[in-house]
Amino acid sequence: MTTRHPKHATPDQPILEPIAARWSPYAYDATRTLEPEKLRICLEALRWAASSYNEQPWSYLIARREDEAAFKTMLGCLWEGNQVWAQNASVLMISVVQRAFKLNGKPNRVAEHDLGLAAGNLVIQAAAIGVDVHQMAGVDLGKAKQTYAIPDGYDAHTAIALGYAAPLEAITDPKLRTGEETPRTRKKVEEFMFAGKWGQRASL
Amino acid sequence: MTTRHPKHATPDQPILEPIAARWSPYAYDATRTLEPEKLRICLEALRWAASSYNEQPWSYLIARREDEAAFKTMLGCLWEGNQVWAQNASVLMISVVQRAFKLNGKPNRVAEHDLGLAAGNLVIQAAAIGVDVHQMAGVDLGKAKQTYAIPDGYDAHTAIALGYAAPLEAITDPKLRTGEETPRTRKKVEEFMFAGKWGQRASL
Repeated sequence: MTTRHPKHATPDQPILEPIAARWSPYAYDATRTLEPEKLRICLEALRWAASSYNEQPWSYLIARREDEAAFKTMLGCLWEGNQVWAQNASVLMISVVQRAFKLNGKPNRVAEHDLGLAAGNLVIQAAAIGVDVHQMAGVDLGKAKQTYAIPDGYDAHTAIALGYAAPLEAITDPKLRTGEETPRTRKKVEEFMFAGKWGQRASL
Repeated sequence: MTTRHPKHATPDQPILEPIAARWSPYAYDATRTLEPEKLRICLEALRWAASSYNEQPWSYLIARREDEAAFKTMLGCLWEGNQVWAQNASVLMISVVQRAFKLNGKPNRVAEHDLGLAAGNLVIQAAAIGVDVHQMAGVDLGKAKQTYAIPDGYDAHTAIALGYAAPLEAITDPKLRTGEETPRTRKKVEEFMFAGKWGQRASL
Protein backbone atom coordinates (compact mmCIF):
# COMPACT_ATOMS: atom_id res chain seq x y z
CA MET A 1 0.00 0.00 0.00
CA THR A 2 1.30 3.45 -0.82
CA THR A 3 0.78 6.56 1.32
CA ARG A 4 -2.73 7.69 2.03
CA HIS A 5 -4.61 9.12 -0.95
CA PRO A 6 -7.67 11.41 -0.65
CA LYS A 7 -9.69 8.68 -2.41
CA HIS A 8 -9.01 6.18 0.37
CA ALA A 9 -12.19 5.57 2.33
CA THR A 10 -12.58 6.61 5.93
CA PRO A 11 -14.57 3.56 6.99
CA ASP A 12 -16.83 3.33 10.02
CA GLN A 13 -15.34 -0.07 10.90
CA PRO A 14 -11.84 -1.59 10.78
CA ILE A 15 -12.12 -3.10 7.31
CA LEU A 16 -9.34 -4.60 5.21
CA GLU A 17 -6.94 -1.92 4.02
CA PRO A 18 -7.18 -2.77 0.28
CA ILE A 19 -11.00 -2.65 0.45
CA ALA A 20 -10.81 0.83 1.97
CA ALA A 21 -8.02 1.97 -0.35
CA ARG A 22 -9.27 0.95 -3.78
CA TRP A 23 -10.65 3.63 -6.07
CA SER A 24 -11.07 4.14 -9.81
CA PRO A 25 -8.60 6.60 -11.36
CA TYR A 26 -9.39 8.72 -14.39
CA ALA A 27 -5.78 9.92 -14.56
CA TYR A 28 -3.44 7.01 -15.26
CA ASP A 29 0.32 7.45 -15.46
CA ALA A 30 1.10 6.68 -19.10
CA THR A 31 4.81 6.36 -18.30
CA ARG A 32 4.32 3.32 -16.06
CA THR A 33 3.86 -0.29 -17.10
CA LEU A 34 2.09 -2.90 -15.01
CA GLU A 35 4.67 -5.54 -14.16
CA PRO A 36 3.73 -8.98 -15.57
CA GLU A 37 4.26 -10.57 -12.15
CA LYS A 38 1.77 -8.16 -10.58
CA LEU A 39 -0.74 -8.85 -13.33
CA ARG A 40 -0.39 -12.58 -12.70
CA ILE A 41 -1.08 -12.08 -8.99
CA CYS A 42 -4.24 -10.10 -9.80
CA LEU A 43 -5.48 -12.79 -12.20
CA GLU A 44 -4.70 -15.58 -9.75
CA ALA A 45 -6.85 -13.82 -7.14
CA LEU A 46 -9.66 -13.46 -9.68
CA ARG A 47 -9.45 -17.17 -10.44
CA TRP A 48 -10.35 -18.20 -6.90
CA ALA A 49 -13.68 -16.36 -6.75
CA ALA A 50 -16.81 -18.25 -5.76
CA SER A 51 -19.47 -19.01 -8.35
CA SER A 52 -22.76 -20.86 -8.50
CA TYR A 53 -22.03 -24.59 -8.93
CA ASN A 54 -18.38 -23.54 -9.32
CA GLU A 55 -19.26 -22.72 -12.91
CA GLN A 56 -16.66 -19.94 -13.18
CA PRO A 57 -18.67 -18.24 -15.96
CA TRP A 58 -15.87 -15.75 -16.72
CA SER A 59 -13.42 -15.25 -19.56
CA TYR A 60 -11.37 -12.22 -20.58
CA LEU A 61 -9.74 -10.65 -23.58
CA ILE A 62 -6.60 -8.77 -22.61
CA ALA A 63 -4.31 -6.22 -24.28
CA ARG A 64 -1.21 -4.42 -23.03
CA ARG A 65 -0.31 -0.89 -24.06
CA GLU A 66 3.09 -2.00 -25.35
CA ASP A 67 1.32 -4.20 -27.91
CA GLU A 68 0.21 -1.08 -29.72
CA ALA A 69 -2.10 -2.53 -32.36
CA ALA A 70 -3.85 -4.89 -29.92
CA PHE A 71 -4.25 -2.12 -27.36
CA LYS A 72 -5.69 0.26 -29.94
CA THR A 73 -8.15 -2.37 -31.07
CA MET A 74 -9.41 -2.96 -27.54
CA LEU A 75 -9.50 0.76 -26.79
CA GLY A 76 -11.75 1.11 -29.83
CA CYS A 77 -14.31 -1.17 -28.18
CA LEU A 78 -14.81 1.29 -25.31
CA TRP A 79 -17.19 4.20 -25.37
CA GLU A 80 -15.41 7.37 -26.44
CA GLY A 81 -15.63 8.93 -23.00
CA ASN A 82 -13.70 6.00 -21.60
CA GLN A 83 -11.12 5.95 -24.39
CA VAL A 84 -9.98 9.43 -23.32
CA TRP A 85 -8.56 8.22 -20.03
CA ALA A 86 -8.22 4.45 -20.54
CA GLN A 87 -5.59 5.00 -23.25
CA ASN A 88 -3.17 5.84 -20.42
CA ALA A 89 -3.76 2.59 -18.54
CA SER A 90 -1.17 -0.14 -18.89
CA VAL A 91 -3.49 -3.10 -19.45
CA LEU A 92 -7.05 -3.37 -20.72
CA MET A 93 -9.38 -6.32 -20.31
CA ILE A 94 -12.86 -7.03 -21.63
CA SER A 95 -14.83 -9.40 -19.43
CA VAL A 96 -17.01 -12.05 -21.05
CA VAL A 97 -19.89 -13.85 -19.37
CA GLN A 98 -20.97 -17.38 -20.21
CA ARG A 99 -24.77 -17.50 -20.30
CA ALA A 100 -25.55 -21.19 -19.73
CA PHE A 101 -24.28 -23.91 -17.43
CA LYS A 102 -21.83 -26.20 -19.20
CA LEU A 103 -23.35 -29.26 -17.56
CA ASN A 104 -26.93 -28.96 -18.75
CA GLY A 105 -27.15 -25.89 -21.01
CA LYS A 106 -29.67 -24.20 -18.71
CA PRO A 107 -29.44 -20.42 -18.25
CA ASN A 108 -27.15 -19.36 -15.43
CA ARG A 109 -29.26 -16.70 -13.73
CA VAL A 110 -26.38 -15.45 -11.60
CA ALA A 111 -23.63 -15.47 -14.24
CA GLU A 112 -23.32 -11.67 -14.31
CA HIS A 113 -23.35 -11.55 -10.52
CA ASP A 114 -20.58 -14.14 -10.39
CA LEU A 115 -18.56 -12.20 -12.96
CA GLY A 116 -18.79 -9.38 -10.43
CA LEU A 117 -17.41 -11.66 -7.71
CA ALA A 118 -14.42 -12.42 -9.93
CA ALA A 119 -13.88 -8.73 -10.64
CA GLY A 120 -14.11 -8.03 -6.92
CA ASN A 121 -11.27 -10.41 -6.20
CA LEU A 122 -9.19 -8.74 -8.90
CA VAL A 123 -9.67 -5.19 -7.66
CA ILE A 124 -9.05 -5.98 -3.99
CA GLN A 125 -5.92 -7.97 -4.83
CA ALA A 126 -4.75 -5.17 -7.10
CA ALA A 127 -5.22 -2.59 -4.37
CA ALA A 128 -3.25 -4.77 -1.97
CA ILE A 129 -0.20 -4.62 -4.24
CA GLY A 130 -0.59 -0.99 -5.24
CA VAL A 131 -2.20 -1.53 -8.65
CA ASP A 132 -5.02 0.81 -9.65
CA VAL A 133 -8.07 -0.61 -11.41
CA HIS A 134 -10.99 1.17 -13.07
CA GLN A 135 -13.92 -0.90 -14.28
CA MET A 136 -16.23 0.27 -17.05
CA ALA A 137 -19.75 -0.53 -18.14
CA GLY A 138 -19.24 1.77 -21.12
CA VAL A 139 -18.27 -0.85 -23.68
CA ASP A 140 -19.56 -1.26 -27.24
CA LEU A 141 -20.71 -4.82 -26.63
CA GLY A 142 -21.57 -5.57 -30.24
CA LYS A 143 -18.25 -4.29 -31.49
CA ALA A 144 -16.38 -6.32 -28.89
CA LYS A 145 -18.31 -9.45 -29.82
CA GLN A 146 -17.50 -9.00 -33.49
CA THR A 147 -13.90 -7.85 -33.02
CA TYR A 148 -12.95 -10.84 -30.88
CA ALA A 149 -15.30 -13.39 -32.47
CA ILE A 150 -16.98 -14.04 -29.11
CA PRO A 151 -19.20 -17.06 -29.78
CA ASP A 152 -22.92 -17.52 -29.22
CA GLY A 153 -23.71 -18.12 -25.58
CA TYR A 154 -21.02 -15.70 -24.42
CA ASP A 155 -21.26 -11.91 -24.16
CA ALA A 156 -18.86 -9.10 -23.43
CA HIS A 157 -20.04 -7.39 -20.26
CA THR A 158 -17.53 -4.89 -18.83
CA ALA A 159 -14.04 -3.56 -19.42
CA ILE A 160 -11.26 -3.22 -16.87
CA ALA A 161 -8.29 -0.85 -16.97
CA LEU A 162 -5.23 -1.65 -14.86
CA GLY A 163 -2.14 0.41 -14.24
CA TYR A 164 -0.93 3.16 -11.96
CA ALA A 165 -2.74 6.37 -11.13
CA ALA A 166 -0.87 9.53 -12.05
CA PRO A 167 0.58 11.39 -9.04
CA LEU A 168 -1.81 14.20 -8.11
CA GLU A 169 0.85 16.86 -8.59
CA ALA A 170 1.39 15.68 -12.17
CA ILE A 171 -2.25 16.28 -13.19
CA THR A 172 -2.31 19.63 -14.97
CA ASP A 173 -6.01 19.75 -15.90
CA PRO A 174 -7.63 21.41 -12.85
CA LYS A 175 -11.02 19.71 -13.34
CA LEU A 176 -9.42 16.29 -13.64
CA ARG A 177 -7.26 16.93 -10.61
CA THR A 178 -10.25 18.04 -8.54
CA GLY A 179 -12.03 14.81 -9.48
CA GLU A 180 -9.03 12.72 -8.46
CA GLU A 181 -8.90 14.46 -5.10
CA THR A 182 -12.57 14.34 -4.18
CA PRO A 183 -13.26 11.75 -1.46
CA ARG A 184 -15.41 8.77 -2.39
CA THR A 185 -18.85 8.59 -0.83
CA ARG A 186 -21.26 5.74 -0.12
CA LYS A 187 -24.69 5.22 1.39
CA LYS A 188 -24.56 4.29 5.05
CA VAL A 189 -25.05 0.61 5.87
CA GLU A 190 -28.27 1.52 7.69
CA GLU A 191 -29.75 2.85 4.46
CA PHE A 192 -29.70 -0.50 2.65
CA MET A 193 -30.05 -3.15 5.40
CA PHE A 194 -33.66 -4.06 6.09
CA ALA A 195 -35.34 -6.54 8.43
CA GLY A 196 -38.84 -8.01 8.33
CA LYS A 197 -39.91 -6.06 5.28
CA TRP A 198 -38.59 -3.71 2.65
CA GLY A 199 -37.65 -0.29 3.97
CA GLN A 200 -37.69 -1.29 7.63
CA ARG A 201 -34.23 -0.63 9.01
CA ALA A 202 -32.40 -3.56 10.52
CA SER A 203 -31.11 -3.25 14.05
CA LEU A 204 -27.40 -4.01 13.64
CA MET B 1 -7.21 -16.37 10.11
CA THR B 2 -7.51 -19.75 11.75
CA THR B 3 -5.27 -22.75 11.08
CA ARG B 4 -5.08 -24.10 7.57
CA HIS B 5 -8.24 -25.84 6.36
CA PRO B 6 -8.27 -28.34 3.47
CA LYS B 7 -10.58 -25.94 1.62
CA HIS B 8 -7.95 -23.20 1.61
CA ALA B 9 -6.62 -22.72 -1.89
CA THR B 10 -3.06 -23.53 -2.85
CA PRO B 11 -2.64 -20.60 -5.22
CA ASP B 12 -0.06 -20.34 -8.00
CA GLN B 13 0.77 -16.78 -6.92
CA PRO B 14 1.12 -14.98 -3.57
CA ILE B 15 -2.46 -13.73 -3.34
CA LEU B 16 -4.16 -12.17 -0.33
CA GLU B 17 -4.69 -14.71 2.42
CA PRO B 18 -8.48 -14.15 2.79
CA ILE B 19 -8.96 -14.58 -0.98
CA ALA B 20 -7.14 -17.92 -0.82
CA ALA B 21 -8.83 -18.98 2.43
CA ARG B 22 -12.49 -18.30 1.73
CA TRP B 23 -14.77 -21.25 0.97
CA SER B 24 -18.47 -22.05 1.27
CA PRO B 25 -19.34 -24.38 4.14
CA TYR B 26 -22.27 -26.79 4.06
CA ALA B 27 -21.74 -27.67 7.71
CA TYR B 28 -22.26 -24.65 9.93
CA ASP B 29 -21.78 -24.78 13.67
CA ALA B 30 -25.27 -24.19 15.05
CA THR B 31 -23.88 -23.51 18.51
CA ARG B 32 -22.02 -20.39 17.42
CA THR B 33 -23.40 -16.90 16.91
CA LEU B 34 -21.88 -14.31 14.63
CA GLU B 35 -20.82 -11.41 16.81
CA PRO B 36 -22.66 -8.17 15.90
CA GLU B 37 -19.35 -6.31 15.71
CA LYS B 38 -18.04 -8.79 13.14
CA LEU B 39 -21.21 -8.51 11.12
CA ARG B 40 -20.85 -4.74 11.09
CA ILE B 41 -17.29 -5.04 9.79
CA CYS B 42 -18.47 -7.32 6.97
CA LEU B 43 -21.26 -4.93 6.00
CA GLU B 44 -18.95 -1.92 6.12
CA ALA B 45 -16.62 -3.66 3.67
CA LEU B 46 -19.57 -4.41 1.40
CA ARG B 47 -20.59 -0.78 1.48
CA TRP B 48 -17.35 0.42 -0.10
CA ALA B 49 -17.62 -1.68 -3.27
CA ALA B 50 -17.36 0.00 -6.65
CA SER B 51 -20.43 0.35 -8.86
CA SER B 52 -21.30 1.92 -12.19
CA TYR B 53 -21.89 5.67 -11.66
CA ASN B 54 -21.56 4.90 -7.94
CA GLU B 55 -25.19 3.74 -8.09
CA GLN B 56 -24.77 1.16 -5.30
CA PRO B 57 -27.70 -0.87 -6.65
CA TRP B 58 -27.73 -3.16 -3.62
CA SER B 59 -30.06 -3.65 -0.65
CA TYR B 60 -30.46 -6.55 1.75
CA LEU B 61 -32.98 -8.21 3.99
CA ILE B 62 -31.33 -9.74 7.04
CA ALA B 63 -32.37 -12.19 9.77
CA ARG B 64 -30.45 -13.63 12.71
CA ARG B 65 -31.01 -17.14 14.01
CA GLU B 66 -31.81 -15.85 17.50
CA ASP B 67 -34.79 -13.98 16.07
CA GLU B 68 -36.50 -17.31 15.53
CA ALA B 69 -39.60 -16.24 13.62
CA ALA B 70 -37.72 -13.88 11.32
CA PHE B 71 -35.05 -16.49 10.66
CA LYS B 72 -37.61 -19.15 9.86
CA THR B 73 -39.37 -16.80 7.46
CA MET B 74 -36.17 -16.09 5.57
CA LEU B 75 -35.13 -19.73 5.60
CA GLY B 76 -38.47 -20.50 3.96
CA CYS B 77 -37.50 -18.31 0.99
CA LEU B 78 -34.57 -20.60 0.18
CA TRP B 79 -34.78 -23.69 -1.95
CA GLU B 80 -35.26 -26.76 0.20
CA GLY B 81 -31.80 -28.10 -0.51
CA ASN B 82 -30.34 -24.93 0.92
CA GLN B 83 -32.63 -24.87 3.96
CA VAL B 84 -31.09 -28.15 5.12
CA TRP B 85 -27.71 -26.60 5.84
CA ALA B 86 -28.48 -22.87 6.00
CA GLN B 87 -30.64 -23.40 9.09
CA ASN B 88 -27.37 -23.81 11.03
CA ALA B 89 -25.90 -20.51 9.90
CA SER B 90 -26.03 -17.60 12.31
CA VAL B 91 -27.22 -14.90 9.93
CA LEU B 92 -29.10 -15.01 6.64
CA MET B 93 -29.35 -12.24 4.08
CA ILE B 94 -31.30 -11.91 0.85
CA SER B 95 -29.68 -9.57 -1.65
CA VAL B 96 -31.87 -7.24 -3.69
CA VAL B 97 -30.88 -5.57 -6.94
CA GLN B 98 -32.19 -2.21 -8.10
CA ARG B 99 -32.95 -2.41 -11.83
CA ALA B 100 -32.83 1.23 -12.95
CA PHE B 101 -30.57 4.19 -12.28
CA LYS B 102 -32.08 6.56 -9.74
CA LEU B 103 -30.98 9.60 -11.72
CA ASN B 104 -32.74 8.92 -15.01
CA GLY B 105 -34.74 5.71 -14.62
CA LYS B 106 -32.79 3.95 -17.38
CA PRO B 107 -31.98 0.25 -16.96
CA ASN B 108 -28.72 -0.42 -15.15
CA ARG B 109 -27.21 -3.12 -17.35
CA VAL B 110 -24.51 -3.99 -14.81
CA ALA B 111 -26.62 -3.91 -11.64
CA GLU B 112 -26.33 -7.67 -11.06
CA HIS B 113 -22.60 -7.53 -11.76
CA ASP B 114 -22.22 -4.71 -9.25
CA LEU B 115 -24.22 -6.65 -6.68
CA GLY B 116 -21.53 -9.30 -7.14
CA LEU B 117 -18.82 -6.72 -6.43
CA ALA B 118 -20.54 -5.87 -3.16
CA ALA B 119 -20.84 -9.55 -2.23
CA GLY B 120 -17.18 -10.02 -3.08
CA ASN B 121 -16.18 -7.35 -0.59
CA LEU B 122 -18.34 -9.03 2.04
CA VAL B 123 -16.89 -12.51 1.60
CA ILE B 124 -13.25 -11.41 1.51
CA GLN B 125 -13.70 -9.23 4.57
CA ALA B 126 -15.49 -12.07 6.33
CA ALA B 127 -12.67 -14.50 5.57
CA ALA B 128 -10.17 -11.99 6.92
CA ILE B 129 -11.85 -12.04 10.33
CA GLY B 130 -12.60 -15.76 10.39
CA VAL B 131 -16.27 -15.59 9.38
CA ASP B 132 -17.55 -18.23 6.94
CA VAL B 133 -19.91 -17.18 4.16
CA HIS B 134 -21.90 -19.33 1.72
CA GLN B 135 -23.77 -17.60 -1.08
CA MET B 136 -26.78 -19.13 -2.77
CA ALA B 137 -28.52 -18.70 -6.09
CA GLY B 138 -31.17 -21.17 -4.88
CA VAL B 139 -33.74 -18.65 -3.67
CA ASP B 140 -37.48 -18.59 -4.33
CA LEU B 141 -37.39 -15.10 -5.82
CA GLY B 142 -41.14 -14.69 -6.07
CA LYS B 143 -41.70 -15.78 -2.49
CA ALA B 144 -38.98 -13.41 -1.27
CA LYS B 145 -40.48 -10.52 -3.22
CA GLN B 146 -43.91 -11.18 -1.73
CA THR B 147 -42.72 -11.97 1.80
CA TYR B 148 -40.71 -8.79 2.15
CA ALA B 149 -42.89 -6.54 -0.06
CA ILE B 150 -39.95 -5.81 -2.35
CA PRO B 151 -41.24 -3.04 -4.63
CA ASP B 152 -41.36 -2.86 -8.41
CA GLY B 153 -37.98 -2.08 -9.89
CA TYR B 154 -36.19 -4.17 -7.28
CA ASP B 155 -35.66 -7.95 -7.30
CA ALA B 156 -34.28 -10.48 -4.86
CA HIS B 157 -31.23 -12.05 -6.48
CA THR B 158 -29.20 -14.24 -4.10
CA ALA B 159 -29.06 -15.30 -0.47
CA ILE B 160 -26.04 -15.23 1.82
CA ALA B 161 -25.43 -17.35 4.93
CA LEU B 162 -22.90 -16.16 7.51
CA GLY B 163 -21.58 -17.90 10.57
CA TYR B 164 -18.90 -20.38 11.53
CA ALA B 165 -18.14 -23.65 9.83
CA ALA B 166 -18.44 -26.71 12.04
CA PRO B 167 -15.09 -28.22 13.06
CA LEU B 168 -14.35 -31.14 10.73
CA GLU B 169 -14.14 -33.60 13.63
CA ALA B 170 -17.67 -32.64 14.71
CA ILE B 171 -19.23 -33.61 11.36
CA THR B 172 -20.71 -37.07 11.84
CA ASP B 173 -22.25 -37.55 8.39
CA PRO B 174 -19.40 -39.12 6.37
CA LYS B 175 -20.61 -37.75 3.03
CA LEU B 176 -20.91 -34.24 4.41
CA ARG B 177 -17.51 -34.50 6.04
CA THR B 178 -15.91 -35.68 2.81
CA GLY B 179 -17.40 -32.71 1.01
CA GLU B 180 -16.08 -30.30 3.61
CA GLU B 181 -12.59 -31.80 3.27
CA THR B 182 -12.34 -31.91 -0.52
CA PRO B 183 -10.02 -29.20 -1.84
CA ARG B 184 -11.54 -26.49 -4.00
CA THR B 185 -10.62 -26.49 -7.67
CA ARG B 186 -10.58 -23.81 -10.36
CA LYS B 187 -9.74 -23.49 -14.03
CA LYS B 188 -6.19 -22.28 -14.63
CA VAL B 189 -5.81 -18.60 -15.51
CA GLU B 190 -4.48 -19.66 -18.94
CA GLU B 191 -7.81 -21.32 -19.72
CA PHE B 192 -9.86 -18.11 -19.59
CA MET B 193 -7.44 -15.33 -20.60
CA PHE B 194 -7.46 -14.67 -24.33
CA ALA B 195 -5.65 -12.17 -26.57
CA GLY B 196 -6.47 -11.01 -30.08
CA LYS B 197 -9.48 -13.25 -30.45
CA TRP B 198 -11.65 -15.65 -28.53
CA GLY B 199 -9.90 -18.90 -27.61
CA GLN B 200 -6.41 -17.65 -28.36
CA ARG B 201 -4.40 -17.92 -25.17
CA ALA B 202 -2.85 -14.74 -23.84
CA SER B 203 0.87 -14.72 -23.17
CA LEU B 204 1.05 -13.70 -19.53
